[in-house]
Amino acid sequence: MKEDLVECSKGLNIPLTPVRFLERAATLYGDKVSIIYNDHVRFSWRQTYERCVKLASALVNLGISQGDIVATLAPNIPEQYELHFGVPMAGAIISALNPKLDATTLAIVLEQLEHCKIIFVDYEFIDFALNATKLISQKKLKPPLIVLIQDYDKLVKDLPQGTLIYDDVLEKGQSDFNILMPSNECEPISVNFTSGSTGIPKGVVYSHRSVYLNSLATITRFDVKTMPVFLWTVDMFRCNGWCFIWLMPLLGGTNICVRDNFSAKNIFDAIYFHKVTHFCGAPILLEIIANCDVVKPFSHKVSVTVAGILPSFEILNRAAEIGFDVNIGYGMTEVLGPVIVRKWRKNFDDDVTKFNYVEEGVIDFMMVEVDVKEPNTMKSVPSDGKTIGEIMFKGNTLMLGYLKSSKVSDEAFRDGWYRTRDLGVRLPNGSFILKDRAKDGIYCKGEFVSSLEVEGVLMNHPKVLKVAVVGGFGEGLVESPCAIVKLKEGCSANVEDIIKFCEDHLDAHMVPKSVVFGDLPLNSTGKVQKFVIREKIKSNGWCDSIN
Amino acid sequence: MKEDLVECSKGLNIPLTPVRFLERAATLYGDKVSIIYNDHVRFSWRQTYERCVKLASALVNLGISQGDIVATLAPNIPEQYELHFGVPMAGAIISALNPKLDATTLAIVLEQLEHCKIIFVDYEFIDFALNATKLISQKKLKPPLIVLIQDYDKLVKDLPQGTLIYDDVLEKGQSDFNILMPSNECEPISVNFTSGSTGIPKGVVYSHRSVYLNSLATITRFDVKTMPVFLWTVDMFRCNGWCFIWLMPLLGGTNICVRDNFSAKNIFDAIYFHKVTHFCGAPILLEIIANCDVVKPFSHKVSVTVAGILPSFEILNRAAEIGFDVNIGYGMTEVLGPVIVRKWRKNFDDDVTKFNYVEEGVIDFMMVEVDVKEPNTMKSVPSDGKTIGEIMFKGNTLMLGYLKSSKVSDEAFRDGWYRTRDLGVRLPNGSFILKDRAKDGIYCKGEFVSSLEVEGVLMNHPKVLKVAVVGGFGEGLVESPCAIVKLKEGCSANVEDIIKFCEDHLDAHMVPKSVVFGDLPLNSTGKVQKFVIREKIKSNGWCDSIN
Repeated sequence: MKEDLVECSKGLNIPLTPVRFLERAATLYGDKVSIIYNDHVRFSWRQTYERCVKLASALVNLGISQGDIVATLAPNIPEQYELHFGVPMAGAIISALNPKLDATTLAIVLEQLEHCKIIFVDYEFIDFALNATKLISQKKLKPPLIVLIQDYDKLVKDLPQGTLIYDDVLEKGQSDFNILMPSNECEPISVNFTSGSTGIPKGVVYSHRSVYLNSLATITRFDVKTMPVFLWTVDMFRCNGWCFIWLMPLLGGTNICVRDNFSAKNIFDAIYFHKVTHFCGAPILLEIIANCDVVKPFSHKVSVTVAGILPSFEILNRAAEIGFDVNIGYGMTEVLGPVIVRKWRKNFDDDVTKFNYVEEGVIDFMMVEVDVKEPNTMKSVPSDGKTIGEIMFKGNTLMLGYLKSSKVSDEAFRDGWYRTRDLGVRLPNGSFILKDRAKDGIYCKGEFVSSLEVEGVLMNHPKVLKVAVVGGFGEGLVESPCAIVKLKEGCSANVEDIIKFCEDHLDAHMVPKSVVFGDLPLNSTGKVQKFVIREKIKSNGWCDSIN
Repeated sequence: MKEDLVECSKGLNIPLTPVRFLERAATLYGDKVSIIYNDHVRFSWRQTYERCVKLASALVNLGISQGDIVATLAPNIPEQYELHFGVPMAGAIISALNPKLDATTLAIVLEQLEHCKIIFVDYEFIDFALNATKLISQKKLKPPLIVLIQDYDKLVKDLPQGTLIYDDVLEKGQSDFNILMPSNECEPISVNFTSGSTGIPKGVVYSHRSVYLNSLATITRFDVKTMPVFLWTVDMFRCNGWCFIWLMPLLGGTNICVRDNFSAKNIFDAIYFHKVTHFCGAPILLEIIANCDVVKPFSHKVSVTVAGILPSFEILNRAAEIGFDVNIGYGMTEVLGPVIVRKWRKNFDDDVTKFNYVEEGVIDFMMVEVDVKEPNTMKSVPSDGKTIGEIMFKGNTLMLGYLKSSKVSDEAFRDGWYRTRDLGVRLPNGSFILKDRAKDGIYCKGEFVSSLEVEGVLMNHPKVLKVAVVGGFGEGLVESPCAIVKLKEGCSANVEDIIKFCEDHLDAHMVPKSVVFGDLPLNSTGKVQKFVIREKIKSNGWCDSIN
């Protein structure tokens, strides 16, 4: 029977693609507001759909064909949002790039995107884009065509000949264009670049199937109800805005687009005026909220999710006290963003020696399996909360692979498992705790020290603002924890204070042997660059006191 | 690039199957209550998972292998629930049968399920099952092995030799059994039989992929939040309980199982004691609620969804007044149950001449397309609210096909569209209105009369309890609407009253030419059997007054 029926179902399945979400929203939520941007842009889902259809048509007119890549360089504005539908509707692949890269890296990234014929550039980044295309031309390669996104009253002059304008391009598109749906749901829909804190950014390719399923997973993962109001604090170029771009039409939500960087004022204003229900991004969001002087009160439920290195209990609690539902995410570009999200419970653990809060998590239903394995044998480590292994994912919301790097792609997977390179332990209840990023683990006299755990303790020292713990090598090349501490404004502390605090809260082998006060090197996204610290340690002899 | 990457993703996708939901619940909701049944059964999700693993192991021990069918004949009890996971975890296909069939039909159904080696039978239905297996034996065919489900204190004596007992079978299963996951997500998971109001029930086959996606669709379709409490008023043998069986572990919900038929008392008790959030089923549910004398008050949100021929405004409004969120569903076994669900808004349309309420609906996001088409040309009818066509579905939550009936399966689909045979119109806003079941439409002097519309008007006559409108043939074989009316207790009305009421609210050609007072023939699930009425009309000359 089985064979007959599977045969009989041939042709009945429709490839899963988030483009369907927009088609549906045009019917189901046609009159509902899709996008609000400043005072002058407000679209309905019917309008957004129509604009994306025209955009897709215009792209085809410009010579884009199935499998081509279209890049973007823009903040969280409506055009960036529309391109995430319009490009796939033309059968092409979208690559939203980080405008905070330098021109040389951008040129390298664009060269990697060798099928990229067009790049849409916001007026703010036009000089930057022109610098990068100049570098490409110097190598006798053909740079992509630039389509300029003007803001309504910001006109850019002196553009190179041939440069097109977004609104003109859109105007030429046809509203009766037949959307080019993927013939196979495993076809690529987007390329997202890793932040590249350890070298050249890698292009991570997502499929229609994976982002469709990930959008669905997001509903329960982020506890999103019908018709949410989403404030765009996470960059759309980060894992396609953690897939929230595609989720919004599915739920008939409203996108609050914002060009500028965030301040407490514009977050609270958006919550107050637009009744924002969800926003997310880097941990800095919570610091902005928690350190704000004047809080505009709100009575509805507002969920904020942050992923990355976590702020202190103090900041997490303060955000919860203000009234936010605070969530903590764990993930990476290769698994489409934060796949594991858990609720921060205020004062959830008063005992600062237990740092389970760091990133304990449970498997998400779309991410069918998460495990902590010994990477050589690929066996699960015991569920004892102690034995450290590598966190691995298996499932339907993984990247297809890295762009043009089949070797790197092969290394990223083993037996169908994606190797995060992060270290963790399994708990008896089936969940796990992230212990460290693999490259940040410190091996001190045969024992593993989690830099995250030491940082977790120090972040709760009353005078510490920020901290990074790395392995420093003293005499005899023995690795030991070395803490770089930035104190809060107006505070003073000495090395002994810090060491004493650690001794009170940590096992002896985890206590830093060396403490340095100073600024922490951050990358463009606010992540601490531990590799820079390690180099400084080496060259400055910061840890000479060790051993 | 495209080809490389799709290639590279080979082996990374994991077949979509609802079995994963239970695995995940065992971790994520391990200690949460999965099932409550009477006073003596209360399982956690960890226990439910372990019992299902043992059940799968036991099935393999009994000789069940991949692609075999396992049937059940049981009310909404925990064992019926467990079998919906245990059977697929053994690689087999579950067929939950309607215990209200007669023994002859059951025998025919079991013969259709030719791979069915085992049938699990609740003690209440054991005589019925034995009668059916006797009929099979008489035809020199091998009947399936019976496994008896005892209730905790209901012992069945005089069982035929070889009959096994559920608890003993489960006991022999191994808890470290390796679940047999489907190798292809399009493999069958279940066979559900149509109600067979027009003949022998047809076996409708669902795939792992379709029920997985349909479970996800149910979250937004029925507005279900995390950890719902589901009262089992819909039969688990109906489209696998409208896929709620599989949805529950996904959301960590609690199943309130009930053996007996429903009364207002036990519905309100369950809402009160267990804080039920959702229940659904046939429209009779609403009548039970609305006609109840003593309403137990509740303050939380309780959603009730009914599908089938709708009760009157009065009943819908009464249920909404009591405090229920009332929803109306439209679907059929072939599309995995009610795919289109919309909220009943109290007094949503006071003008009884507009019966858009009947089953107007919008497309569901998993059911990627719904359309109203002219079935010969397969062209969409105009969106004018007038032109009648056939409602068709296309998407990922359709049946694979009918069991062992490739001809009927082929006829059910055209160009990848499932033909519902129901009649509808398209509205300018993209939604549609169901006008009639195709077989119930009345063609009166060249004009189409929707029996649902006439019934809708009559259901709002103050003295009418129930009504069915069918086409009757008078002299010259001209078809005309004929109304069979059951009055409310203690009420009296004559034919002229009824006709006058229709004349006040309907176009002239829709007014019944003939009215008969009496009981309506219902099938085992409470559906009016219009084919029985038509036969009575013919043999009794009920419509002789026509023309």
